Amino acid sequence: MTETYQSALIVGAGSGLSASVARAFAKAGMKIALAARTVDKLGPLAKETNAQIYACDASQRADVDKLFAALDGAGAPDVVVYNASYRTRGPFLDLDPAEVEKAIIVSGFAGFLVAQAAVKRMLPRGRGAMLFTGASASIKGYAQSAPFAMGKFALRGLAQSMARELGPQGIHVAHFVIDGGIRSANRPVPADKPDSLLDPDAIAQTYLHILQQSRSAWTHEIELRPWVEKF
Amino acid sequence: MTETYQSALIVGAGSGLSASVARAFAKAGMKIALAARTVDKLGPLAKETNAQIYACDASQRADVDKLFAALDGAGAPDVVVYNASYRTRGPFLDLDPAEVEKAIIVSGFAGFLVAQAAVKRMLPRGRGAMLFTGASASIKGYAQSAPFAMGKFALRGLAQSMARELGPQGIHVAHFVIDGGIRSANRPVPADKPDSLLDPDAIAQTYLHILQQSRSAWTHEIELRPWVEKF
Amino acid sequence: MTETYQSALIVGAGSGLSASVARAFAKAGMKIALAARTVDKLGPLAKETNAQIYACDASQRADVDKLFAALDGAGAPDVVVYNASYRTRGPFLDLDPAEVEKAIIVSGFAGFLVAQAAVKRMLPRGRGAMLFTGASASIKGYAQSAPFAMGKFALRGLAQSMARELGPQGIHVAHFVIDGGIRSANRPVPADKPDSLLDPDAIAQTYLHILQQSRSAWTHEIELRPWVEKF
Amino acid sequence: MTETYQSALIVGAGSGLSASVARAFAKAGMKIALAARTVDKLGPLAKETNAQIYACDASQRADVDKLFAALDGAGAPDVVVYNASYRTRGPFLDLDPAEVEKAIIVSGFAGFLVAQAAVKRMLPRGRGAMLFTGASASIKGYAQSAPFAMGKFALRGLAQSMARELGPQGIHVAHFVIDGGIRSANRPVPADKPDSLLDPDAIAQTYLHILQQSRSAWTHEIELRPWVEKF
Repeated sequence: MTETYQSALIVGAGSGLSASVARAFAKAGMKIALAARTVDKLGPLAKETNAQIYACDASQRADVDKLFAALDGAGAPDVVVYNASYRTRGPFLDLDPAEVEKAIIVSGFAGFLVAQAAVKRMLPRGRGAMLFTGASASIKGYAQSAPFAMGKFALRGLAQSMARELGPQGIHVAHFVIDGGIRSANRPVPADKPDSLLDPDAIAQTYLHILQQSRSAWTHEIELRPWVEKF
Repeated sequence: MTETYQSALIVGAGSGLSASVARAFAKAGMKIALAARTVDKLGPLAKETNAQIYACDASQRADVDKLFAALDGAGAPDVVVYNASYRTRGPFLDLDPAEVEKAIIVSGFAGFLVAQAAVKRMLPRGRGAMLFTGASASIKGYAQSAPFAMGKFALRGLAQSMARELGPQGIHVAHFVIDGGIRSANRPVPADKPDSLLDPDAIAQTYLHILQQSRSAWTHEIELRPWVEKF
Repeated sequence: MTETYQSALIVGAGSGLSASVARAFAKAGMKIALAARTVDKLGPLAKETNAQIYACDASQRADVDKLFAALDGAGAPDVVVYNASYRTRGPFLDLDPAEVEKAIIVSGFAGFLVAQAAVKRMLPRGRGAMLFTGASASIKGYAQSAPFAMGKFALRGLAQSMARELGPQGIHVAHFVIDGGIRSANRPVPADKPDSLLDPDAIAQTYLHILQQSRSAWTHEIELRPWVEKF
Repeated sequence: MTETYQSALIVGAGSGLSASVARAFAKAGMKIALAARTVDKLGPLAKETNAQIYACDASQRADVDKLFAALDGAGAPDVVVYNASYRTRGPFLDLDPAEVEKAIIVSGFAGFLVAQAAVKRMLPRGRGAMLFTGASASIKGYAQSAPFAMGKFALRGLAQSMARELGPQGIHVAHFVIDGGIRSANRPVPADKPDSLLDPDAIAQTYLHILQQSRSAWTHEIELRPWVEKF
């Protein structure tokens, strides 16, 4: 049995990866909803993917509740991608505690808020997929980058707990370890190092594949990195 | 850039998973070669996938050399799947050292022999894919199962070393952690536990996807397990 | 060179493990400071270990600042043990978001607050030790226990980042994976399963050993579990 | 209950680490047996630690059987340290298969042979300790170093399987991840980088500590690295 999902919500929709995921999922026939704290620039993507736009600070429970209540009208999404994060970095003693807390809350706790609201709609149907975007920092705490590690480690802990509990209830929980930089307009691939940054469209193809897996052979964790990336 | 490979060699071709991989790869247009220690029963699969059959004990260097020399004539494979293994189990004190050695050699060392011969042909072209089939035992040593753990851990060490060295030279090295039992004629899925064993065709779809990844976003390691599997 | 530290601060001092650590460190000649949110019951331990008591909610930056300011008078500690945590558990949909946030903040973020204040005093001297108490949940997210996993994963990410950055500056950062239940008055060891719960005094001996390691052979991560514990 | 062991066998006794372990264990009151493939240079150490010397190629079952038979007379060791390994390295295509096999056999399979013979003597008494020396390569396969990774990964798989099976039967199985170079006469510590190589005497102190742990709080895996080591 290959899963066929109908609609997907992408949280943290402002990133290049989210745009690629939205396009890939739309092309595969899914109805798309885009949520982000700042929605100003989402217009073109929404138009391209025929998506609805929702303003939502995922770290605020009320916002998350409002988002899902709004979605309920049109039918709750059976796929939710959590792709928001916040990071701050620098020498350990220079880190601003308020920023550290924000990194943990946005990268970790907000993922819980979104996941809980999403699963609430999925469980009664006995199916759904919850995808979490991780990073190298999900499995390795780098120097001068404790806040991002704390947030991403927390998100991975969440994903594992959910997979163990909710997998047997029909919810496919997957955690993607994106190990390397993602190319973007601001971060082009060096001409002399072809494919040395992750192409977000390529990542999106793997997100789509994971979604299409039969439940007899689900992936919980998968890593993705450019061919030349050190690891 | 999505990789398109032309031909695949599957070593350890006698298993149900290998059969599914052969079918999926053939359907995707690849020319298939099947290698196994015992080739008696490979006829139907070879016919179905239009494959050549090669007898080869992958733990014997001479056999592996002969296999690749034979393949060279028709064009060396740009994809090689190492799917052979041997296991023995039981209380630690009851393990027969000769059997333990065989488990390590077949599950681990033979993978090296095949990989080295394969990569020798891939490197000059700057591309190719080497896929290794792992198991739960690749990352966790279970009680009464040291031999399988030793072989599968070794294979994972090989895969990691190869990925770090050969990825930047264009060789996609991937390691699949198959976590759970694979259904087969001898091991049917219990009627009251649907999809509780891995469907080899479902696994094969993910092998195929990994092969199709752009080199900007390659997966080195991925896990696959049934939705209800404890982990 | 074996490190000899003079004074230790134990945060989360109310637990049985903290009491054992305080006793072991005091016996080894260290001056002890005990910090906890609730200090009512710390009297006997303080007396026994000749320790000072400090009330401190480690999740509150102002409290942490006040704690370390108070300690500065008598000489900042060169060893700090972060042993506070908060957990809530239950079916995923029943988890109270406020409780989840508290688990992440107390088990994770508060560890950062304490560590930053501690390291601020250690770095100028080029030496010091920061010990973090982890759990099985630090490396494995269990069903119905996402909040604890999120907090403990985050703490591990913090510990790794700190070790990579601060180790080369003389700060020994160690993370203890306590895998199993700790025996206590409320949780006695079953008579028919001797030593099946971790003896906090035994754990403390290993904390002390890690503190005494030469910097040429420091342990960052170590696991401890009862002989009969499944893992 | 702190374990007190009486006698220790060190296999792979020719290394600097083995010498330090022998000295530390002898000083702690244990009777020492030294085994190595080449015993020519073990005289001074044997004299210093009042040890017996045994010639043994641990990769040969007959040799291992003979070694333990010889030990049986004087009382089988209740502690066995497996510290032998063999490595070869270089570009993947240049690796000599015979050398690769030797690396796997000596670093991995021989560990099994020694462990099985050792445990055979320990199980009837319900106690004993089996210590395995790992390396960075036990958990990470480095480029140009597949053979060592294969051997050390295999050894780790063995250690985990043994721990899960034999821990509950009273055998303490510990795996030490030595992450960094060990200083020796041939590899002195650079004057401008103090303590940048592991001091084998420092490592030995931790081996001794692990041996002294109460079975209520046993360590299975522990990592050791110099303070300035990148990881």
